Amino acid sequence: MNSVGGRVAHPIEQHSYAILRARLAAAGPDTRHLPPLTRAVIERVVHASADIDYATDLICDEDALRDGVATLAAGAPVVADVRMTVAGITTRDVVCRLADVDPVAATSDGLTRSAAAVELALDEVGPGAVWVIGCAPTALAHLLALADVARPALVVGMPVGFVGAVEAKEALRASGLPAVSNRSEKGGAAVAAAALNALLYEGVRP
Amino acid sequence: MNSVGGRVAHPIEQHSYAILRARLAAAGPDTRHLPPLTRAVIERVVHASADIDYATDLICDEDALRDGVATLAAGAPVVADVRMTVAGITTRDVVCRLADVDPVAATSDGLTRSAAAVELALDEVGPGAVWVIGCAPTALAHLLALADVARPALVVGMPVGFVGAVEAKEALRASGLPAVSNRSEKGGAAVAAAALNALLYEGVRP
Repeated sequence: MNSVGGRVAHPIEQHSYAILRARLAAAGPDTRHLPPLTRAVIERVVHASADIDYATDLICDEDALRDGVATLAAGAPVVADVRMTVAGITTRDVVCRLADVDPVAATSDGLTRSAAAVELALDEVGPGAVWVIGCAPTALAHLLALADVARPALVVGMPVGFVGAVEAKEALRASGLPAVSNRSEKGGAAVAAAALNALLYEGVRP
Repeated sequence: MNSVGGRVAHPIEQHSYAILRARLAAAGPDTRHLPPLTRAVIERVVHASADIDYATDLICDEDALRDGVATLAAGAPVVADVRMTVAGITTRDVVCRLADVDPVAATSDGLTRSAAAVELALDEVGPGAVWVIGCAPTALAHLLALADVARPALVVGMPVGFVGAVEAKEALRASGLPAVSNRSEKGGAAVAAAALNALLYEGVRP
């Protein structure tokens, strides 16, 4: 097993990585030739989803990822959109205010519950946090609307769905914010958490 | 909006269902011609994942699903393998004992933590529960090994990964237990929770 900073890569995880690297070397992209953090994110997302398509669907920026690792190591707050995203991030406290949203008030403000939860979380953590959006396109869209205040250190934007997810992820990339995202309608809490975990686990490459 | 028993299908959800039904009608299977609970499970998993491939990947048994709905309505305990699966099931208390596993004791017994958590949960809920395995193939394999004691009312078996997930799901289908599963390496907490939610929400079809 490999171990750095207390995290140990289980033999099953090492076996999974060997399989996915061989598949990607055959089908492309060969992750061994990618920049290290881009590689770490792609491999962990494919490991978590068993979906090779993410290797070409993900959009990573090595500089943004490097800054993200440093920001996380410095203790920046991490915010997630839903409890399922929180549950996928087991080595770090994560802020999620969805349960605190008053649905009637949110509706009267024209917000979804997920979007209203972004406002509550921003009030709590202030600027410079790392944001992980794994479920709700409206949460990502609202974070972008508040970007001048939130000034996120990194946005993992991988909401899922047929309604608004592709557009919200396109808007994230167009914003110029430091980001990880994917092109397709796919996404979700597990892959968003996996992308963040790749950065939190950096140094413990299986 | 549609509402039954307190659950309301949000307009975004209704829009998502309209899109996925049109896609499936064009690409197959046309879910409008499926038995109602099989349809509900397939549509909710596709809605949750934005992955049309699940429509042909899922293996449903209408009779098992009907019994599962009745068992859930009668208040059967629900057990999940990991916190992320629990977090996806928001309308029901769910038992998950993964956090209670002693990793040293589990390893000395030759079990993964996920498999050891199955034993703890079984001690708590006894026979006849509904089991939702969304992450760990070893949890599903261990549940099958204990099936004579657990006598599950329904197993939602959708663990994910390159190592053991396909085999564990094949073993579930070969066991003859009432089940929902899928053929491929894909799966995960979000889709497993979605399959169960389709049964919990039955009567609130978007």
